[in-house]
Amino acid sequence: MSELRQNRITGEWVIIATERALRPEDFHKNNEKPKLPRFSENCPFCPGNEHMTPPEIMAARPVDSQPDTPGWQARITPNKFPALNSNDSADWYHEANFFNAVRGFGVHDVIVDHPRHDLTVGTMSDDDVEQLFILYQDRYRMLEKDEQINLITIFRNNGLRAGASLEHPHSQLIATPIIPTRIQMRLDTAKDYFEKHNSCITCDMIEKTLTVKERIVLDSDRFVVFEPFASQAPFETWIVPKNHAPSYGEIPYEELRELSHIVRDILKKMYYGLGDPDYNYVIQTSPSRTRFREQYHWYFQLLPRMAVTVGFELCSGIYISTAKPEETAKFLRNCRAPD
Amino acid sequence: MSELRQNRITGEWVIIATERALRPEDFHKNNEKPKLPRFSENCPFCPGNEHMTPPEIMAARPVDSQPDTPGWQARITPNKFPALNSNDSADWYHEANFFNAVRGFGVHDVIVDHPRHDLTVGTMSDDDVEQLFILYQDRYRMLEKDEQINLITIFRNNGLRAGASLEHPHSQLIATPIIPTRIQMRLDTAKDYFEKHNSCITCDMIEKTLTVKERIVLDSDRFVVFEPFASQAPFETWIVPKNHAPSYGEIPYEELRELSHIVRDILKKMYYGLGDPDYNYVIQTSPSRTRFREQYHWYFQLLPRMAVTVGFELCSGIYISTAKPEETAKFLRNCRAPD
Repeated sequence: MSELRQNRITGEWVIIATERALRPEDFHKNNEKPKLPRFSENCPFCPGNEHMTPPEIMAARPVDSQPDTPGWQARITPNKFPALNSNDSADWYHEANFFNAVRGFGVHDVIVDHPRHDLTVGTMSDDDVEQLFILYQDRYRMLEKDEQINLITIFRNNGLRAGASLEHPHSQLIATPIIPTRIQMRLDTAKDYFEKHNSCITCDMIEKTLTVKERIVLDSDRFVVFEPFASQAPFETWIVPKNHAPSYGEIPYEELRELSHIVRDILKKMYYGLGDPDYNYVIQTSPSRTRFREQYHWYFQLLPRMAVTVGFELCSGIYISTAKPEETAKFLRNCRAPD
Repeated sequence: MSELRQNRITGEWVIIATERALRPEDFHKNNEKPKLPRFSENCPFCPGNEHMTPPEIMAARPVDSQPDTPGWQARITPNKFPALNSNDSADWYHEANFFNAVRGFGVHDVIVDHPRHDLTVGTMSDDDVEQLFILYQDRYRMLEKDEQINLITIFRNNGLRAGASLEHPHSQLIATPIIPTRIQMRLDTAKDYFEKHNSCITCDMIEKTLTVKERIVLDSDRFVVFEPFASQAPFETWIVPKNHAPSYGEIPYEELRELSHIVRDILKKMYYGLGDPDYNYVIQTSPSRTRFREQYHWYFQLLPRMAVTVGFELCSGIYISTAKPEETAKFLRNCRAPD
């Protein structure tokens, strides 16, 4: 029987459509991608082509190497076709005294994940992914200081269905002066819950998920990895820190290291077990101007994109998922990737 | 310069990304679809194949014709693989005293738009589309009476990128006992606005949009057709009734007739002017249990899907659009479709 389920943190309802449900192993087909070369001559993200991107903002590279030259391990540059621009100051206006808008201001970076054209996070080494997550945090901390910025979103689109337009492995960062309504709703929900229960909704979700057990993928020292009760899509996976903290910017090195290794392991399982599915991942973190220290709990969200989103979800905000999170969690627990 | 804009009705923020903006005419490419046959032997929605669907619920057909036989003009049946089922009563449960869910109950219909396999709403006749919209309303009114149902969503997915899985022109209806958070937010926004201004936010948006003028596509007797200030995607178009009413279920025949002709005309412009783009459309209407008579204003939303949604919008709730609504409105105003 199908179920309507609500995600308590995001507030969103989903339909777990069992009438059309697939078994976890059915998702493997159609995900395979063409084999890529290690280096691609015309790729702006390959080493030696650094002049093809705007000048680098920061990079994981040896101290004696020059910016915009090879030798880097991961590298951040402004997006060549940015959705937002950081040149100007945020300029609010209200058209016809009714429509709200902000002109111009914002940050849109590209983060080149690795020098090699043919890798993806699931096939990079533990050290490589750790470097990448340290670089994410360095840039996050830099932007947090900018008083015009309120929300910093670090995300990665893997594959065409997830919106990636270049083959070379890369992530993105968008920083905005506004807090979007969906995030504001999440903050309000967390605040309401805290006022009612005097505890963090995410801490409670971790506890309840550990009690129910069957949706757990991994229970490590510092993180619980699980498929949410109301998964938006098959194999949606959350990696949630046990240590309550509002922001990715403030987690200590040991925690960041463990996170990066877990992300690598889960994506490696998906790479081999599901055939490198398209996905988005995002670091969900508190706005930087208003911290919501006690109420908000940062987390890492992984959202595979193995099905086309149907119109209904755009219309109503209800996602339809064709797999049970209880079953996809079991599949991921048992999935063995080669070393 | 790019802009962040907020849709006052949905609360959603979008980025109008002018750095990567396309001219309206650039969207034509890649939309063309393969030519379809008038009749397809194995299509469950073609006349003569009525036995391939579950028994029909209602249809636009001559009074002397039998259900589940040819002769219909438009036809509603249960979805063969429904996301929700109407056999059971709504059964709320709370896993681990924390996770909210409703088992089973809901309605998921398929509406076959037309007997011909090769048509789409933009190429159907005025009369055909009118029949379809009357059938939508008949079914809507029937379901409104069901006390277990609170939200009735009628929508259409055109093309693969919009989630359509069958070629034959069809729409869908999903009815749920719950109100999804995104709709609840819209209701709350409308309620807050009404309390503050003692007027309907949508009535005010119509007035302001008519004042600003440049985003208007059509100003007819009973409707204003415009591209929203904060369009989520290129060519997003709203058809909003001038007469304030909360629900599609209660509009009179003359209004329904005008709506259906306008929908046909706009989709015909898009069919010829943009090469039959993939799109979703939806009738946004008030929940049926709680009417919000003064605050909520139903409307018709058309959302072309010419670009893949990027990961950022799934993460943050901020959509990035690569066209200015002021320019797409001008394009649609000037677009001449053949008679």
